Amino acid sequence: MNHLDMLKTHPRNTTIDPKVLSDCIEECLACLDACNSCADACLGEQQIDMLRRCIRTNLDCADACQAAARMLARQTEPSWALLRAQVQAMELACRLCAEECEKHGKQHEHCRICAEACRRCEAACTRLMSSLPAQA
Amino acid sequence: MNHLDMLKTHPRNTTIDPKVLSDCIEECLACLDACNSCADACLGEQQIDMLRRCIRTNLDCADACQAAARMLARQTEPSWALLRAQVQAMELACRLCAEECEKHGKQHEHCRICAEACRRCEAACTRLMSSLPAQA
Amino acid sequence: MNHLDMLKTHPRNTTIDPKVLSDCIEECLACLDACNSCADACLGEQQIDMLRRCIRTNLDCADACQAAARMLARQTEPSWALLRAQVQAMELACRLCAEECEKHGKQHEHCRICAEACRRCEAACTRLMSSLPAQA
Amino acid sequence: MNHLDMLKTHPRNTTIDPKVLSDCIEECLACLDACNSCADACLGEQQIDMLRRCIRTNLDCADACQAAARMLARQTEPSWALLRAQVQAMELACRLCAEECEKHGKQHEHCRICAEACRRCEAACTRLMSSLPAQA
Repeated sequence: MNHLDMLKTHPRNTTIDPKVLSDCIEECLACLDACNSCADACLGEQQIDMLRRCIRTNLDCADACQAAARMLARQTEPSWALLRAQVQAMELACRLCAEECEKHGKQHEHCRICAEACRRCEAACTRLMSSLPAQA
Repeated sequence: MNHLDMLKTHPRNTTIDPKVLSDCIEECLACLDACNSCADACLGEQQIDMLRRCIRTNLDCADACQAAARMLARQTEPSWALLRAQVQAMELACRLCAEECEKHGKQHEHCRICAEACRRCEAACTRLMSSLPAQA
Repeated sequence: MNHLDMLKTHPRNTTIDPKVLSDCIEECLACLDACNSCADACLGEQQIDMLRRCIRTNLDCADACQAAARMLARQTEPSWALLRAQVQAMELACRLCAEECEKHGKQHEHCRICAEACRRCEAACTRLMSSLPAQA
Repeated sequence: MNHLDMLKTHPRNTTIDPKVLSDCIEECLACLDACNSCADACLGEQQIDMLRRCIRTNLDCADACQAAARMLARQTEPSWALLRAQVQAMELACRLCAEECEKHGKQHEHCRICAEACRRCEAACTRLMSSLPAQA
């Protein structure tokens, strides 16, 4: 499924750019999957001791993305202030997780792939933030 | 992100067919997004009274898919019995949600798209179930 | 289970007041359950048309609380900035949901109970925010 | 909030024993919190190498409980077959997690507390299973 096709069928019109919104939701789902997978791959690594912080940031990022993916997909009676707050939390979670994963990207391919997913999601959040209405 | 690329980087080998597993996780994420979106689109419809059951099955299906997507992506120390049980719950959730959404597919395009996502996820579950080891 | 008993067993010391933190996590779990239940009770009401916004804010609040409950319970390698951002999103979600549920509290007992759970969680967030370290 | 008080306000009558259902949802939320907390406490332990399987079963159990807690709290248009399937997955997740945590309960107090939460949730699932209607 392409999220944009689904978004176009919603009975209520959104004031946000549908492409920017759909891209963000898709990056969000990909990031949640990457983070959840990377946490588990780290858990299976010999050198798990160096990866504790990575597992923690992965789990936090997955949780922030999951909440945001669900909230952003809703177009009925939105609160822009709440969406802004949740996207801001997710954007920060993505940046922190990307920074941590990038430290391990040379040794662990899963960290490299996860860092990329986090950076794409972070960029999608930044674009969405400038597209979200300022008022409540 | 392509889940298969991530799966290949895992330090532990899986005994499940990686393509079948990755496809199921991707359908699962798409289905969770479709169901969450369809629940909200139904909530915005004029004829919401006929869509109560649809909203309920959408929400249940999103929750079952979310749990399964997280559990299936983990390759470290899996319990096949638990994965079978969660995939079975998800497969049933997808079938019930598809059956309900198909009733509204002619009037509501979001129900038609959601039913398709549920059917694809249901089929991916069936393929995965025959690929999961029988023992604990 | 009492969350405080669990928190005391953690191998890493937290710099946050353990009672304030545990209370917030417990209110957070109670609020997530109240919001999820209220959304479904609204879905079963005759006058569902007036309850669309209530269902939406209930679902958002449940999602924000769920992410926060998971993130706050982690004491290993925390990012205070991220916790602040997620608690801020949750606090706002609770306030918006309480405001909406309070409008329906006279007709619908589930809205009255839910509003109370949201207000308790909102207050616990406010206490926690002033207890969280300011630095990253 | 007491879940039973909330359940009594639902516009639709449930055919399940409300006390058995409410107890199960409350144990489910406590178990999800215990498992999420124990996974993180294990992540902070010196001897993390022995706790990999424990972290994995904790995360799976938290996810199964989360899905079940949300689905069970809904009384509008339920599917008993789906609830049975999800409760079965959760019951197994709780048993597996309890068995693993019990192995570490002497060295790690968080594992002992988590095992107890899992056993209480497992017992609540067993009681609920015999209370759920057999038909779809």
